[in-house]
Order: sequence, then structure tokens, then C-alpha cells
Amino acid sequence: MNKNDELYCEHYQRAAELIGGRWTATIIRVLLGGVHHFNAIRSEIPGLSDRMLSERLRELDHEGVVSRVVFPEMPVRVEYHLTDKGRALAPVMDALIAWIGEWAAPDPAPLARKE
Amino acid sequence: MNKNDELYCEHYQRAAELIGGRWTATIIRVLLGGVHHFNAIRSEIPGLSDRMLSERLRELDHEGVVSRVVFPEMPVRVEYHLTDKGRALAPVMDALIAWIGEWAAPDPAPLARKE
Repeated sequence: MNKNDELYCEHYQRAAELIGGRWTATIIRVLLGGVHHFNAIRSEIPGLSDRMLSERLRELDHEGVVSRVVFPEMPVRVEYHLTDKGRALAPVMDALIAWIGEWAAPDPAPLARKE
Repeated sequence: MNKNDELYCEHYQRAAELIGGRWTATIIRVLLGGVHHFNAIRSEIPGLSDRMLSERLRELDHEGVVSRVVFPEMPVRVEYHLTDKGRALAPVMDALIAWIGEWAAPDPAPLARKE
């Protein structure tokens, strides 16, 4: 083990916690899937409240992952879009989907579990 | 937008929350890096307490990601190793590292932030 390997990285841990927040990964996936209106996003995710969705979108906006886009129409239209930084998370989400495809199948994977 | 697309997946959300738990992504990275003893894992991660590391390893064991290996020596030696399911998370972690390499650089990325 080379002690010069940087196994701890604050950015890495923080990014994992951002993505791993309650509902966050699913909200990013819904946005990647082309759903952009608040009510439409919420209706894609069973159990997600208005309050929680607002909070998560605000957090993702603050992190530069999501942008709140206001269309100056009457009535005003608001959409939520991933920024370039947000769209760059797609490979992370794809890798996670591949992992659950292999390991979280309805039939238990052939793994000796200790419970 | 095809309404048959399954944008919500419980397994996916749960996997993201598992990986995004406090310290979890870093613990997995340390294990991938070849560190297997409890004290050695803890000493790689500034601010991680014994209690929190125990709790996280127990959770990862329960999820089939980490295996607690006991070597019947005197004194008994205990190591923590990723299972096949745990090692299969490496591409997720690699994708996350690539993302922070691009977007979480010390110099702010050229992104219009709204704060």
C-alpha cells in the first residue's frame, strides 16, 4: 500500500453525499429523462412531496447541477434543467444503473449474505 | 416523453443512498485501495470515528457489499474485504472521480452559479 495514494478526497465524499441525498439521484434521472416541470417531476416519483422536491432542486441549483429557467410568458413558465455539470453526471448514473441491473435483481444474487 | 420509461426505480434510489451515506463512498474507495484492517481504514479518513466506521461496515456487510473475514490466528485477525458485489461498484466510483476531476477542481468551473 503506497501511503501517497490519496484515498481520502473531500470533493469525492461530498459529491457522493450530494448524489446520495434522499430522492436526489432519482430527480437527476428524471431531469436526464427530459421531464422539466415541477409538477411533472414530482408526479414521476412516488412519495416525493412538494416541499422535498423544492428543497432538493434548490440544493442542486446551489451546487450548479440544476438551473431554474424562467420563460417570460403569460403566465410565466418555469422549468428545471440540468447544467453542463449536471449532465456530466450521466455516466455516474449509468454506472449505478448497470450495477443494480447486475446486483439488485428481483431474484437475489448468488451471494452469501450475513444478516 | 414516453410515459413507459421507468424513471423511478426503488433499487436505483436505494443504491444511490447507500453509496451516498456519510463516509460510505470513501470507505469503499479505501477498501478498493487495498486497506483492510479496521484501524488502518479509520486512519485513512480524517474525522471518521470508531463508532461511525463500525456502523458503516455493518451496514455494508448487511447489504452484501463488504465481508468481515476472520483469520483464526492467535490473536485472531479480522479484515474487511469488498465482496464481488462491492468490487462491482468500482465503475461507479471511477465515474464519480472523473466527474469531480472535471467539475470540482480547486479553481471554480466556468459555470454561471445562482446563489
